[in-house]
Amino acid sequence: MLRIVVACIALLAVAGSGSAMDRPVAPNGIALYSGYMNWKVVAPSYREDKGHIRIVTGNEIAVAALRAGTKPLPDGSVLAKVAWKAEKHPSFPVATVPGAFAQVEFMVKDAVKYKETGGWGYARFLGNELKPYGKDAGFVKECFGCHTPVADNDYLFTRIVTVP
Amino acid sequence: MLRIVVACIALLAVAGSGSAMDRPVAPNGIALYSGYMNWKVVAPSYREDKGHIRIVTGNEIAVAALRAGTKPLPDGSVLAKVAWKAEKHPSFPVATVPGAFAQVEFMVKDAVKYKETGGWGYARFLGNELKPYGKDAGFVKECFGCHTPVADNDYLFTRIVTVP
Ligand code: HEC
Ligand code: HEC
Repeated sequence: MLRIVVACIALLAVAGSGSAMDRPVAPNGIALYSGYMNWKVVAPSYREDKGHIRIVTGNEIAVAALRAGTKPLPDGSVLAKVAWKAEKHPSFPVATVPGAFAQVEFMVKDAVKYKETGGWGYARFLGNELKPYGKDAGFVKECFGCHTPVADNDYLFTRIVTVP
Repeated sequence: MLRIVVACIALLAVAGSGSAMDRPVAPNGIALYSGYMNWKVVAPSYREDKGHIRIVTGNEIAVAALRAGTKPLPDGSVLAKVAWKAEKHPSFPVATVPGAFAQVEFMVKDAVKYKETGGWGYARFLGNELKPYGKDAGFVKECFGCHTPVADNDYLFTRIVTVP
Protein backbone atom coordinates (compact mmCIF):
# COMPACT_ATOMS: atom_id res chain seq x y z
CA MET A 1 0.00 0.00 0.00
CA LEU A 2 2.71 2.47 1.01
CA ARG A 3 4.52 1.71 -2.25
CA ILE A 4 1.39 2.54 -4.27
CA VAL A 5 0.90 5.81 -2.38
CA VAL A 6 4.54 6.79 -3.01
CA ALA A 7 4.24 5.87 -6.70
CA CYS A 8 1.04 7.91 -7.01
CA ILE A 9 2.63 10.97 -5.41
CA ALA A 10 5.59 10.68 -7.77
CA LEU A 11 3.30 10.37 -10.80
CA LEU A 12 1.18 13.33 -9.74
CA ALA A 13 4.32 15.41 -9.21
CA VAL A 14 5.53 14.66 -12.74
CA ALA A 15 2.09 15.25 -14.25
CA GLY A 16 1.76 18.61 -12.52
CA SER A 17 5.24 19.90 -13.24
CA GLY A 18 4.62 21.04 -16.80
CA SER A 19 7.47 18.75 -17.86
CA ALA A 20 8.30 17.56 -21.37
CA MET A 21 5.59 14.90 -20.87
CA ASP A 22 2.90 17.54 -21.38
CA ARG A 23 4.52 19.21 -24.33
CA PRO A 24 3.94 18.29 -27.96
CA VAL A 25 6.90 16.60 -29.64
CA ALA A 26 7.87 16.86 -33.31
CA PRO A 27 8.39 13.61 -35.31
CA ASN A 28 12.17 14.04 -34.93
CA GLY A 29 11.92 14.12 -31.11
CA ILE A 30 12.20 17.90 -30.54
CA ALA A 31 9.71 18.98 -27.84
CA LEU A 32 8.14 22.45 -27.75
CA TYR A 33 10.27 24.93 -25.80
CA SER A 34 7.78 26.62 -23.49
CA GLY A 35 9.73 29.75 -22.51
CA TYR A 36 10.21 31.31 -25.95
CA MET A 37 8.04 34.40 -25.27
CA ASN A 38 10.43 35.29 -22.43
CA TRP A 39 13.46 35.15 -24.74
CA LYS A 40 15.05 38.25 -26.24
CA VAL A 41 14.08 39.65 -29.60
CA VAL A 42 16.15 38.74 -32.64
CA ALA A 43 13.86 40.52 -35.15
CA PRO A 44 10.29 41.09 -36.28
CA SER A 45 9.20 40.11 -39.79
CA TYR A 46 6.14 40.38 -42.00
CA ARG A 47 4.97 37.97 -44.71
CA GLU A 48 2.32 39.59 -46.87
CA ASP A 49 2.02 36.41 -48.99
CA LYS A 50 1.17 34.28 -45.95
CA GLY A 51 -0.73 37.03 -44.09
CA HIS A 52 1.55 36.53 -41.08
CA ILE A 53 3.35 38.90 -38.74
CA ARG A 54 6.20 37.34 -36.80
CA ILE A 55 8.93 37.66 -34.29
CA VAL A 56 12.10 35.66 -34.00
CA THR A 57 13.37 35.26 -30.43
CA GLY A 58 16.47 33.47 -29.17
CA ASN A 59 17.57 31.84 -25.93
CA GLU A 60 20.50 33.38 -24.00
CA ILE A 61 23.16 31.34 -25.83
CA ALA A 62 21.79 32.23 -29.26
CA VAL A 63 21.28 35.96 -28.57
CA ALA A 64 24.71 36.36 -26.98
CA ALA A 65 26.31 34.76 -30.07
CA LEU A 66 24.23 36.79 -32.54
CA ARG A 67 25.03 40.06 -30.73
CA ALA A 68 28.73 39.19 -30.67
CA GLY A 69 28.66 38.13 -34.33
CA THR A 70 29.90 34.61 -33.49
CA LYS A 71 29.24 32.18 -36.35
CA PRO A 72 28.42 29.31 -36.51
CA LEU A 73 26.21 29.61 -33.41
CA PRO A 74 27.33 27.38 -30.50
CA ASP A 75 25.58 24.17 -29.43
CA GLY A 76 22.64 24.92 -27.15
CA SER A 77 21.49 27.89 -29.24
CA VAL A 78 17.74 27.83 -29.88
CA LEU A 79 15.80 30.22 -32.12
CA ALA A 80 12.02 30.49 -32.15
CA LYS A 81 9.96 32.01 -34.94
CA VAL A 82 6.43 32.83 -33.80
CA ALA A 83 3.72 33.75 -36.30
CA TRP A 84 0.34 35.39 -35.79
CA LYS A 85 -2.34 36.16 -38.33
CA ALA A 86 -1.71 39.75 -39.56
CA GLU A 87 -4.68 42.10 -39.03
CA LYS A 88 -5.43 45.79 -39.44
CA HIS A 89 -5.55 47.56 -36.08
CA PRO A 90 -9.28 48.17 -35.37
CA SER A 91 -8.68 51.80 -34.24
CA PHE A 92 -5.82 52.54 -36.65
CA PRO A 93 -6.13 50.48 -39.85
CA VAL A 94 -2.82 51.52 -41.44
CA ALA A 95 -1.06 49.61 -38.65
CA THR A 96 -0.74 45.85 -39.27
CA VAL A 97 -0.76 44.01 -35.95
CA PRO A 98 -0.93 40.41 -34.65
CA GLY A 99 -4.27 38.60 -34.34
CA ALA A 100 -4.71 34.89 -33.63
CA PHE A 101 -1.68 32.68 -33.02
CA ALA A 102 -0.69 30.72 -36.15
CA GLN A 103 2.41 28.63 -35.40
CA VAL A 104 5.79 28.47 -33.71
CA GLU A 105 8.96 27.01 -35.18
CA PHE A 106 12.30 26.20 -33.62
CA MET A 107 15.88 25.74 -34.77
CA VAL A 108 18.02 23.93 -32.19
CA LYS A 109 21.81 23.84 -32.56
CA ASP A 110 23.71 20.62 -31.97
CA ALA A 111 26.56 20.30 -34.47
CA VAL A 112 26.92 16.53 -33.94
CA LYS A 113 23.33 15.39 -33.43
CA TYR A 114 21.99 17.41 -36.38
CA LYS A 115 25.06 17.08 -38.63
CA GLU A 116 22.94 16.02 -41.62
CA THR A 117 20.98 19.30 -41.57
CA GLY A 118 23.70 21.89 -41.06
CA GLY A 119 23.88 21.35 -37.29
CA TRP A 120 20.29 22.51 -36.75
CA GLY A 121 17.31 20.47 -35.57
CA TYR A 122 13.97 21.76 -36.86
CA ALA A 123 10.48 21.67 -35.33
CA ARG A 124 7.14 23.33 -36.09
CA PHE A 125 3.92 23.37 -34.02
CA LEU A 126 0.64 24.48 -35.56
CA GLY A 127 -2.34 26.40 -34.17
CA ASN A 128 -3.77 26.50 -30.70
CA GLU A 129 -3.41 22.71 -30.45
CA LEU A 130 0.32 23.09 -31.16
CA LYS A 131 0.01 20.14 -33.51
CA PRO A 132 3.48 18.84 -34.46
CA TYR A 133 4.16 19.35 -38.17
CA GLY A 134 5.37 16.46 -40.35
CA LYS A 135 4.33 12.84 -40.93
CA ASP A 136 7.74 11.48 -39.95
CA ALA A 137 11.25 12.73 -39.19
CA GLY A 138 11.78 13.32 -42.93
CA PHE A 139 9.82 16.61 -42.67
CA VAL A 140 13.08 18.38 -41.88
CA LYS A 141 14.15 18.03 -45.53
CA GLU A 142 11.66 20.75 -46.41
CA CYS A 143 13.02 23.09 -43.69
CA PHE A 144 16.66 22.38 -44.49
CA GLY A 145 16.06 22.73 -48.22
CA CYS A 146 14.65 26.21 -47.86
CA HIS A 147 17.33 27.32 -45.37
CA THR A 148 20.23 25.99 -47.51
CA PRO A 149 20.55 29.17 -49.64
CA VAL A 150 21.64 30.96 -46.44
CA ALA A 151 24.22 28.31 -45.47
CA ASP A 152 26.91 31.01 -45.39
CA ASN A 153 24.97 32.70 -42.55
CA ASP A 154 24.81 29.43 -40.54
CA TYR A 155 21.48 28.60 -42.29
CA LEU A 156 19.81 31.62 -40.70
CA PHE A 157 17.74 34.07 -42.70
CA THR A 158 17.30 36.53 -39.85
CA ARG A 159 19.96 39.08 -38.89
CA ILE A 160 19.64 40.36 -35.34
CA VAL A 161 18.28 43.92 -35.19
CA THR A 162 20.61 46.66 -34.05
CA VAL A 163 19.92 49.89 -32.18
CA PRO A 164 22.28 52.80 -31.56
CA MET B 1 44.64 68.73 -3.21
CA LEU B 2 43.03 65.65 -1.69
CA ARG B 3 39.62 67.28 -2.18
CA ILE B 4 40.35 67.84 -5.86
CA VAL B 5 41.48 64.23 -6.32
CA VAL B 6 38.34 62.95 -4.61
CA ALA B 7 36.17 65.25 -6.73
CA CYS B 8 37.92 64.07 -9.91
CA ILE B 9 37.44 60.40 -9.02
CA ALA B 10 33.75 61.07 -8.33
CA LEU B 11 33.36 62.91 -11.64
CA LEU B 12 35.13 60.18 -13.60
CA ALA B 13 32.97 57.53 -11.95
CA VAL B 14 29.81 59.35 -12.99
CA ALA B 15 31.11 60.01 -16.52
CA GLY B 16 32.08 56.37 -17.02
CA SER B 17 28.98 54.82 -15.57
CA GLY B 18 26.77 55.21 -18.63
CA SER B 19 24.41 57.17 -16.40
CA ALA B 20 21.57 59.44 -17.45
CA MET B 21 24.24 62.10 -18.10
CA ASP B 22 25.26 60.32 -21.30
CA ARG B 23 21.78 59.62 -22.52
CA PRO B 24 19.70 61.92 -24.70
CA VAL B 25 16.81 63.58 -22.87
CA ALA B 26 13.43 64.57 -24.37
CA PRO B 27 12.22 68.20 -23.90
CA ASN B 28 9.91 66.99 -21.09
CA GLY B 29 12.84 65.50 -19.14
CA ILE B 30 12.41 61.82 -20.03
CA ALA B 31 15.83 60.24 -20.71
CA LEU B 32 16.33 57.33 -23.13
CA TYR B 33 15.89 53.95 -21.41
CA SER B 34 18.93 51.99 -22.53
CA GLY B 35 17.80 48.43 -21.74
CA TYR B 36 14.73 48.23 -23.97
CA MET B 37 16.10 45.56 -26.32
CA ASN B 38 16.43 43.25 -23.30
CA TRP B 39 12.76 43.72 -22.35
CA LYS B 40 10.09 41.19 -23.22
CA VAL B 41 8.03 41.36 -26.38
CA VAL B 42 4.60 42.99 -26.27
CA ALA B 43 3.97 42.72 -30.03
CA PRO B 44 5.43 43.26 -33.50
CA SER B 45 3.75 45.68 -35.92
CA TYR B 46 4.14 46.80 -39.52
CA ARG B 47 3.37 50.22 -41.02
CA GLU B 48 3.27 50.04 -44.78
CA ASP B 49 2.48 53.78 -45.00
CA LYS B 50 5.65 54.71 -43.09
CA GLY B 51 7.76 51.85 -44.45
CA HIS B 52 8.54 50.76 -40.88
CA ILE B 53 8.62 47.40 -39.13
CA ARG B 54 8.42 47.58 -35.35
CA ILE B 55 8.37 45.85 -32.05
CA VAL B 56 6.84 47.02 -28.82
CA THR B 57 8.67 45.79 -25.71
CA GLY B 58 7.85 46.40 -22.04
CA ASN B 59 9.78 46.45 -18.78
CA GLU B 60 8.96 43.81 -16.13
CA ILE B 61 6.22 45.89 -14.46
CA ALA B 62 4.48 46.62 -17.75
CA VAL B 63 4.66 43.07 -19.16
CA ALA B 64 3.46 41.49 -15.89
CA ALA B 65 0.44 43.84 -15.89
CA LEU B 66 -0.33 43.29 -19.58
CA ARG B 67 -0.12 39.50 -19.22
CA ALA B 68 -2.38 39.62 -16.14
CA GLY B 69 -4.80 41.98 -17.89
CA THR B 70 -4.39 44.65 -15.17
CA LYS B 71 -5.60 48.04 -16.36
CA PRO B 72 -4.68 50.84 -15.96
CA LEU B 73 -1.02 49.81 -15.92
CA PRO B 74 0.75 50.53 -12.61
CA ASP B 75 3.26 53.34 -12.04
CA GLY B 76 6.72 52.31 -13.15
CA SER B 77 5.44 50.62 -16.32
CA VAL B 78 7.47 51.57 -19.39
CA LEU B 79 6.71 50.60 -22.99
CA ALA B 80 9.15 51.02 -25.86
CA LYS B 81 8.22 51.05 -29.54
CA VAL B 82 11.24 50.50 -31.75
CA ALA B 83 11.06 51.09 -35.51
CA TRP B 84 13.38 50.02 -38.29
CA LYS B 85 13.16 50.72 -42.01
CA ALA B 86 11.22 47.83 -43.61
CA GLU B 87 13.16 46.02 -46.35
CA LYS B 88 12.73 42.96 -48.54
CA HIS B 89 14.95 40.10 -47.38
CA PRO B 90 17.82 39.93 -49.92
CA SER B 91 17.60 36.11 -50.21
CA PHE B 92 13.82 35.84 -49.80
CA PRO B 93 12.06 38.98 -51.07
CA VAL B 94 8.52 38.04 -49.95
CA ALA B 95 9.73 38.42 -46.36
CA THR B 96 9.72 42.01 -45.05
CA VAL B 97 12.48 42.42 -42.46
CA PRO B 98 14.16 45.23 -40.49
CA GLY B 99 16.91 47.35 -42.05
CA ALA B 100 18.38 50.52 -40.56
CA PHE B 101 17.19 51.78 -37.17
CA ALA B 102 14.63 54.58 -37.49
CA GLN B 103 13.49 55.63 -34.01
CA VAL B 104 12.51 54.54 -30.52
CA GLU B 105 9.58 55.87 -28.50
CA PHE B 106 8.64 55.44 -24.87
CA MET B 107 5.51 55.68 -22.75
CA VAL B 108 6.29 55.95 -19.03
CA LYS B 109 3.54 55.50 -16.45
CA ASP B 110 3.25 57.87 -13.50
CA ALA B 111 -0.40 58.60 -12.73
CA VAL B 112 0.41 61.78 -10.73
CA LYS B 113 3.36 63.24 -12.63
CA TYR B 114 1.75 62.77 -16.06
CA LYS B 115 -1.85 63.37 -14.97
CA GLU B 116 -2.43 65.84 -17.84
CA THR B 117 -1.68 63.19 -20.47
CA GLY B 118 -3.56 60.18 -19.18
CA GLY B 119 -0.86 59.18 -16.68
CA TRP B 120 1.71 58.55 -19.45
CA GLY B 121 4.90 60.48 -20.16
CA TYR B 122 5.96 60.39 -23.83
CA ALA B 123 9.40 60.50 -25.45
CA ARG B 124 10.77 59.87 -28.96
CA PHE B 125 14.40 59.63 -30.12
CA LEU B 126 15.26 59.77 -33.82
CA GLY B 127 17.90 58.02 -35.92
CA ASN B 128 21.38 56.87 -35.01
CA GLU B 129 21.97 60.16 -33.17
CA LEU B 130 18.91 59.42 -31.00
CA LYS B 131 17.93 63.06 -31.45
CA PRO B 132 15.17 63.97 -28.98
CA TYR B 133 11.93 64.80 -30.81
CA GLY B 134 10.05 68.04 -30.07
CA LYS B 135 10.96 71.74 -29.79
CA ASP B 136 9.65 72.00 -26.24
CA ALA B 137 7.65 69.98 -23.71
CA GLY B 138 4.47 70.77 -25.70
CA PHE B 139 5.39 68.03 -28.21
CA VAL B 140 3.49 65.54 -26.05
CA LYS B 141 0.18 67.04 -27.23
CA GLU B 142 0.72 65.35 -30.58
CA CYS B 143 1.39 61.96 -28.92
CA PHE B 144 -1.47 62.25 -26.45
CA GLY B 145 -3.85 63.45 -29.15
CA CYS B 146 -3.28 60.41 -31.30
CA HIS B 147 -3.44 57.98 -28.34
CA THR B 148 -6.68 59.50 -26.94
CA PRO B 149 -8.99 57.35 -29.13
CA VAL B 150 -7.71 54.31 -27.20
CA ALA B 151 -8.25 55.91 -23.76
CA ASP B 152 -10.45 52.95 -22.78
CA ASN B 153 -7.40 50.69 -23.20
CA ASP B 154 -5.25 52.92 -20.92
CA TYR B 155 -4.17 54.92 -24.04
CA LEU B 156 -2.44 51.87 -25.50
CA PHE B 157 -2.95 50.75 -29.09
CA THR B 158 -1.02 47.54 -28.70
CA ARG B 159 -2.53 44.37 -27.18
CA ILE B 160 0.04 41.91 -25.88
CA VAL B 161 0.44 38.87 -28.14
CA THR B 162 -0.75 35.53 -26.83
CA VAL B 163 0.48 32.02 -27.48
CA PRO B 164 -1.15 28.70 -26.50
C1 HEC C 1 9.88 28.14 -48.27
C2 HEC C 1 11.01 28.53 -47.43
C3 HEC C 1 11.10 28.06 -46.01
C4 HEC C 1 10.79 26.83 -45.49
C5 HEC C 1 10.24 25.61 -46.19
C6 HEC C 1 11.13 26.90 -44.07
N1 HEC C 1 11.62 28.14 -43.76
FE1 HEC C 1 12.22 28.77 -41.93
N2 HEC C 1 12.52 30.65 -42.65
C7 HEC C 1 12.33 31.04 -43.96
C8 HEC C 1 12.54 32.49 -44.07
C9 HEC C 1 12.45 33.32 -45.34
C10 HEC C 1 12.85 32.94 -42.78
C11 HEC C 1 13.12 34.41 -42.39
C12 HEC C 1 12.00 35.13 -41.61
C13 HEC C 1 10.56 35.05 -42.05
O1 HEC C 1 10.22 34.63 -43.16
O2 HEC C 1 9.68 35.45 -41.27
C14 HEC C 1 12.85 31.76 -41.92
C15 HEC C 1 13.18 31.78 -40.58
C16 HEC C 1 13.12 30.69 -39.72
C17 HEC C 1 13.49 30.72 -38.33
C18 HEC C 1 14.16 31.88 -37.60
C19 HEC C 1 15.69 31.82 -37.84
C20 HEC C 1 16.08 32.22 -39.26
O3 HEC C 1 16.63 31.38 -40.00
O4 HEC C 1 15.80 33.35 -39.65
C21 HEC C 1 13.20 29.48 -37.82
C22 HEC C 1 13.40 29.05 -36.37
C23 HEC C 1 12.68 28.68 -38.89
N3 HEC C 1 12.64 29.43 -40.06
C24 HEC C 1 12.27 27.35 -38.78
C25 HEC C 1 11.80 26.58 -39.82
C26 HEC C 1 11.27 25.22 -39.68
C27 HEC C 1 11.20 24.46 -38.38
C28 HEC C 1 10.90 24.80 -40.92
C29 HEC C 1 10.30 23.50 -41.37
C30 HEC C 1 9.31 22.81 -40.56
C31 HEC C 1 11.18 25.90 -41.83
N4 HEC C 1 11.74 26.95 -41.14
C32 HEC C 1 10.94 25.86 -43.19
C33 HEC C 1 12.01 30.22 -45.02
C34 HEC C 1 11.62 28.90 -44.90
C1 HEC D 1 -0.74 59.62 -35.73
C2 HEC D 1 -0.94 58.78 -34.60
C3 HEC D 1 0.10 58.65 -33.52
C4 HEC D 1 0.91 59.62 -32.98
C5 HEC D 1 0.99 61.08 -33.32
C6 HEC D 1 1.70 58.96 -31.96
N1 HEC D 1 1.38 57.63 -31.88
FE1 HEC D 1 2.20 56.25 -30.62
N2 HEC D 1 1.16 54.77 -31.56
C7 HEC D 1 0.26 54.95 -32.60
C8 HEC D 1 -0.21 53.65 -33.05
C9 HEC D 1 -1.22 53.38 -34.16
C10 HEC D 1 0.44 52.68 -32.26
C11 HEC D 1 0.29 51.15 -32.41
C12 HEC D 1 1.47 50.40 -33.03
C13 HEC D 1 2.12 50.89 -34.31
O1 HEC D 1 1.62 51.76 -35.04
O2 HEC D 1 3.20 50.38 -34.66
C14 HEC D 1 1.27 53.44 -31.32
C15 HEC D 1 2.03 52.85 -30.32
C16 HEC D 1 2.89 53.52 -29.47
C17 HEC D 1 3.64 52.91 -28.41
C18 HEC D 1 3.51 51.45 -27.96
C19 HEC D 1 2.35 51.35 -26.94
C20 HEC D 1 0.99 51.44 -27.62
O3 HEC D 1 0.23 52.40 -27.33
O4 HEC D 1 0.69 50.61 -28.48
C21 HEC D 1 4.42 53.88 -27.85
C22 HEC D 1 5.42 53.70 -26.72
C23 HEC D 1 4.13 55.12 -28.55
N3 HEC D 1 3.17 54.87 -29.53
C24 HEC D 1 4.72 56.33 -28.26
C25 HEC D 1 4.41 57.53 -28.92
C26 HEC D 1 5.09 58.80 -28.71
C27 HEC D 1 6.22 59.02 -27.73
C28 HEC D 1 4.51 59.71 -29.53
C29 HEC D 1 4.82 61.18 -29.75
C30 HEC D 1 6.19 61.66 -29.73
C31 HEC D 1 3.46 59.02 -30.26
N4 HEC D 1 3.42 57.70 -29.86
C32 HEC D 1 2.65 59.61 -31.20
C33 HEC D 1 -0.15 56.15 -33.12
C34 HEC D 1 0.41 57.40 -32.84
